[in-house]
Amino acid sequence: MKPYAEMTKEELESLRAQLKAEYREYQGKGLSLNMARGKPCKEQLDLSMGMMDVLGSNDDLTCEDGTDCRNYGVLDGIKEAKELIGDMMENPIDSIIIYGNSSLNVMYDTISRSMTHGVMGSTPWCRLDKVKFLCPVPGYDRHFAITQYFGIEMVNVPMTPTGPDMDLVERLVASDEAVKGIWCVPKYSNPQGISYSDETVRRFARLKPAAKDFRIYWDNAYGVHHLYDHDQDHLIEILAECKRAGNPDLVYKFASTSKISFPGSGLAAIATSPNNMEDIKAQLAIQTIGHDKVNQLRHVRFFGDIHGLVEHMRLHADILRPKFEIVIDTLESELGGLGIGTWTTPKGGYFISFDSLDGCAKAIVTKAKKAGVVMTGAGATYPYGRDPHDSNIRIAPTYPSQEDLRVAMKIFALCVKLVSINKLLEAAAQAGSDPAPRAQ
Amino acid sequence: MKPYAEMTKEELESLRAQLKAEYREYQGKGLSLNMARGKPCKEQLDLSMGMMDVLGSNDDLTCEDGTDCRNYGVLDGIKEAKELIGDMMENPIDSIIIYGNSSLNVMYDTISRSMTHGVMGSTPWCRLDKVKFLCPVPGYDRHFAITQYFGIEMVNVPMTPTGPDMDLVERLVASDEAVKGIWCVPKYSNPQGISYSDETVRRFARLKPAAKDFRIYWDNAYGVHHLYDHDQDHLIEILAECKRAGNPDLVYKFASTSKISFPGSGLAAIATSPNNMEDIKAQLAIQTIGHDKVNQLRHVRFFGDIHGLVEHMRLHADILRPKFEIVIDTLESELGGLGIGTWTTPKGGYFISFDSLDGCAKAIVTKAKKAGVVMTGAGATYPYGRDPHDSNIRIAPTYPSQEDLRVAMKIFALCVKLVSINKLLEAAAQAGSDPAPRAQ
Repeated sequence: MKPYAEMTKEELESLRAQLKAEYREYQGKGLSLNMARGKPCKEQLDLSMGMMDVLGSNDDLTCEDGTDCRNYGVLDGIKEAKELIGDMMENPIDSIIIYGNSSLNVMYDTISRSMTHGVMGSTPWCRLDKVKFLCPVPGYDRHFAITQYFGIEMVNVPMTPTGPDMDLVERLVASDEAVKGIWCVPKYSNPQGISYSDETVRRFARLKPAAKDFRIYWDNAYGVHHLYDHDQDHLIEILAECKRAGNPDLVYKFASTSKISFPGSGLAAIATSPNNMEDIKAQLAIQTIGHDKVNQLRHVRFFGDIHGLVEHMRLHADILRPKFEIVIDTLESELGGLGIGTWTTPKGGYFISFDSLDGCAKAIVTKAKKAGVVMTGAGATYPYGRDPHDSNIRIAPTYPSQEDLRVAMKIFALCVKLVSINKLLEAAAQAGSDPAPRAQ
Repeated sequence: MKPYAEMTKEELESLRAQLKAEYREYQGKGLSLNMARGKPCKEQLDLSMGMMDVLGSNDDLTCEDGTDCRNYGVLDGIKEAKELIGDMMENPIDSIIIYGNSSLNVMYDTISRSMTHGVMGSTPWCRLDKVKFLCPVPGYDRHFAITQYFGIEMVNVPMTPTGPDMDLVERLVASDEAVKGIWCVPKYSNPQGISYSDETVRRFARLKPAAKDFRIYWDNAYGVHHLYDHDQDHLIEILAECKRAGNPDLVYKFASTSKISFPGSGLAAIATSPNNMEDIKAQLAIQTIGHDKVNQLRHVRFFGDIHGLVEHMRLHADILRPKFEIVIDTLESELGGLGIGTWTTPKGGYFISFDSLDGCAKAIVTKAKKAGVVMTGAGATYPYGRDPHDSNIRIAPTYPSQEDLRVAMKIFALCVKLVSINKLLEAAAQAGSDPAPRAQ
């Protein structure tokens, strides 16, 4: 089929009638399919059920160093958990603090602490007139929600296939003392699945911030979440690169096992420099006596070591790979060559990013919903929920079954077609000519 | 033996020589005994080992309402956990939010949120010139550490046998808009083991704060931590009393299972009014996707219901009762009638509070340490670590074995005697007369 933009008004109208009939048929089925959130599916959760057996009432819940995991104490995590998570994060154990179950909570706490107490002795942000964060877009809605909650002004930075637009990042960071941070999902980014190039990471490590309390919020949520065994993205380790660049304190690195063991019952962690660590621990010691060491021990006993964890991730990949392929294949077969959308083909992570013609995303998501397919809300991938092009849609293929996903993606593609035709016809009507708008 | 204050200089000097010899003997034994922190002992931890068996790989980790506890979601806790903790806290389930493993963390977060976002729409505390908290003394050092960390001015309020001095509380709360909160451990208080009288609770519920954003921080840490089966203190439930008094939003109530199941691996919770709840949830939804539901389910499956939990607490009591009795009996037999110290005899909780002659506490703790007995630092029970009388010492009898505790208490009593004699002789030397200072 030829690109929609090259079709005549009559061709588009005839096509629309046919697609509408298809759409109505799906609507009649009363479907309820969900591609909204990056949730693991039941089969993935089942992979970790063995974790429920590694600590029994006859087991010794004592660490190698003699710590009884059942009692109070140990602020920054038991040594064996720091080793496992350190290996996962590619950082030495003395740069790691193990937290509770949520890396989002760690990020929230990091910003909250900066608001009330500043960063390594800087003025608390709550006393400043203006605090800004750079937000590579499209990005992760829950990141943006934190900065919005604290009244931090968010500045969009466009993503490129190699990461954020680093010319812009360098300029903004160097010129504006109000810029205190940047949100990054550097590997298999949310939602595009882009991994930052070596050059991008090097430029991050070499930033020259106007603000001494500027930090990179490096949310390496998908560090070991590959889809393929050999065809994997590789990311330069940022802490080591910052140290080499003479900027050891520039970065907070976050990770968790939420999408490795059980979401909500995993381990979250931060890795950072000794100076930042000291700053954080001074606060952490006031906030808590310690996090859940029994759960730390449970994870260590279940995975054994980093090799065990990597092998476990292969099992996740076996479940997720076909789902990603269903999405990509459906997009290819249904929308390929039509000029009404582009999409990413990630090698890992939890999402695929779709870009429609300008001004179509909201309508597509609404139309899909009316046929029983729930997508992430259009705009969610932008600060304040405002996608200036109204074009980006995040596809989360992990939770539905393959069968459901096939149907959901068919419906999604159908909605893209219908909304795009409407858009093209409207544009043509306004221009008083046959449609030929720019496909992006 | 007669009161030290009635002894002559010669009698005291002779006694001191004899006690010093005893002390040196203990020193020679190279002991290492710890009565510093309120930590459960190994036997107490063993009581909950069954919790490691209730969720196995063949068990269904699904809630009654169909929620898969292994996946993301459920911000405020699974229903069955809210029911168990609600029964424990004596509050309906819709007034409960289940958090992670630490009620201290919940309190910290509550103050942190008030600093950055205020309370139900009030001015964020970080924008105010002055914020004050009332601190009943002696009290819990970790409470004071939180308020100190946030630069909140702490105002001492003396404890009485029925709770804080309510005349003073009422006056300060009603007259000073800077007073935003008060720290309370209302039942088996830390460190005195005092439970607030009915009148005290009623007066709390009827406070008329100058500040709209004043809240009572009601840390009911020892709500079910009785030592005896029938001789238990009873506390009027504060949320209900506030509601009856027309002040439904006046209180945040905190609790946890830290000293019920495993410290560090338990459940913490807040109970509060619908208005406060809305305020809290708006923040919580930004901070996290949810807390550890698997651990919530584990607690529910292990305890079954509130009766199961209460029966479990009887087993704790069986372990702790003899330890409390060792402390009280030793204090009675060693120090009774000497006029050099007073102490409390709690019916529950984790501590016994000792008051020496004025100006002796630091010296007693130091002397005990030199004989191998670690106590909570003198002054720790007061804001800023400053006990104006230098007299209060917290005794934590739960962690050591009975055998160790017997020895530790003997040494402690010995140190009290020695330091008191020194004090009395000093005072006599200064007064140029036989010693007769006031014993408190």
